[in-house]
Amino acid sequence: MTQEKAVVLLSGGLDSATSLAIAQAKGLQCHTLSFNYGQRHNAELKAAQRVAEFARVTEHKVVILDPAAFSGSALTDMHIDVPEQESLGIPITYVPARNTIFLAYALGWAEVLGAEHIYIGVNAVDYSGYPDCRPEFIKAFEAMANLATKVAVEGRPIKIETPLIHLTKGEIIRQGTELGVDYSLTVSCYQADADGRACAKCDSCRLRKKGFDEAVIADPTRYI
Amino acid sequence: MTQEKAVVLLSGGLDSATSLAIAQAKGLQCHTLSFNYGQRHNAELKAAQRVAEFARVTEHKVVILDPAAFSGSALTDMHIDVPEQESLGIPITYVPARNTIFLAYALGWAEVLGAEHIYIGVNAVDYSGYPDCRPEFIKAFEAMANLATKVAVEGRPIKIETPLIHLTKGEIIRQGTELGVDYSLTVSCYQADADGRACAKCDSCRLRKKGFDEAVIADPTRYI
Repeated sequence: MTQEKAVVLLSGGLDSATSLAIAQAKGLQCHTLSFNYGQRHNAELKAAQRVAEFARVTEHKVVILDPAAFSGSALTDMHIDVPEQESLGIPITYVPARNTIFLAYALGWAEVLGAEHIYIGVNAVDYSGYPDCRPEFIKAFEAMANLATKVAVEGRPIKIETPLIHLTKGEIIRQGTELGVDYSLTVSCYQADADGRACAKCDSCRLRKKGFDEAVIADPTRYI
Repeated sequence: MTQEKAVVLLSGGLDSATSLAIAQAKGLQCHTLSFNYGQRHNAELKAAQRVAEFARVTEHKVVILDPAAFSGSALTDMHIDVPEQESLGIPITYVPARNTIFLAYALGWAEVLGAEHIYIGVNAVDYSGYPDCRPEFIKAFEAMANLATKVAVEGRPIKIETPLIHLTKGEIIRQGTELGVDYSLTVSCYQADADGRACAKCDSCRLRKKGFDEAVIADPTRYI
């Protein structure tokens, strides 16, 4: 039996590192995909590289996205401050159609590789403000993907896997720790410094910190 | 009443130029979007620019796509010859997940602009071999888009418009000609030269030629 393949979206953060570990635990041959889209937290890209190496993935690919395509969001526009308070509704760090674009690239690569699975570490618990982190979005993307591609026409469906979607941050960290994820390699902070040290103040840092507290696991994050 | 907006995918070819003219005839404010993805026929990008200028669109944007993301297809891989015979089934010039990626970017831009419409010149008659040119794909993309975006969550749906989907090439050319499209500005050839002159031999050239014959309109294409 040939080993099934997965394209795993890898941001360098805690969630996607866990999602990769889960895909590997299922025996899948993993091809990881990161995006350089001019984001402030370029430290995340280095973290993604470290995580991919540590996990000995088959191939790690970084696709450069033209930042001109992503205007009007705090994550890519240096003129908008990253919020340090909990935001209500949709966070202003939301990048328009980001997960749609990421998944579209993953779909293209999955087709080239003949991969049956695409892993994305979205989470509907902590990121309920992001429309493209909800199960109904993922389900609709999967339905579309299976009409978009040659492999689908030929009868081999692609599955969008979201192993973290209903987990709390604490549960994610517990599961990843059991699978041997080294969270010291990951960076979640929206404004990490060049060394990958976290600010401890942004939404993402606060969520991560709370997760380690919940999991009752020592937080290996290096703070500024 | 404020003018509604549209993001119009513009390849520089005959179909998308017609799709733009139809969007403008509906009174929409048009923002055109082209992609530079290392395609052989870069002449198409210049054609897209000319078409956008001729149509006096509000804004024309070219997004650079990382060619590394698109391997394994004749349109981007110089080592695969472009087929000169009619191909059966899915043409080898098919780029994995191309329309999914193009529409994903259009969706992101539509969200930033507050545009209600995305126009794409896909055609299910002549391009039945491409899975992502079929009405069922477009319908599934639209459903997904309306779960992916902030505007959708806020109750303002985005419509994917495919005015050419059921037209023959002859019908497209007749309609565009009535709307004042200058087809001499467009390039359809898969292997046009730097001047935009067409080979007359590839699938795309043959389809285009046949279309002008059907429409009984003089073919303004410049051939090599």
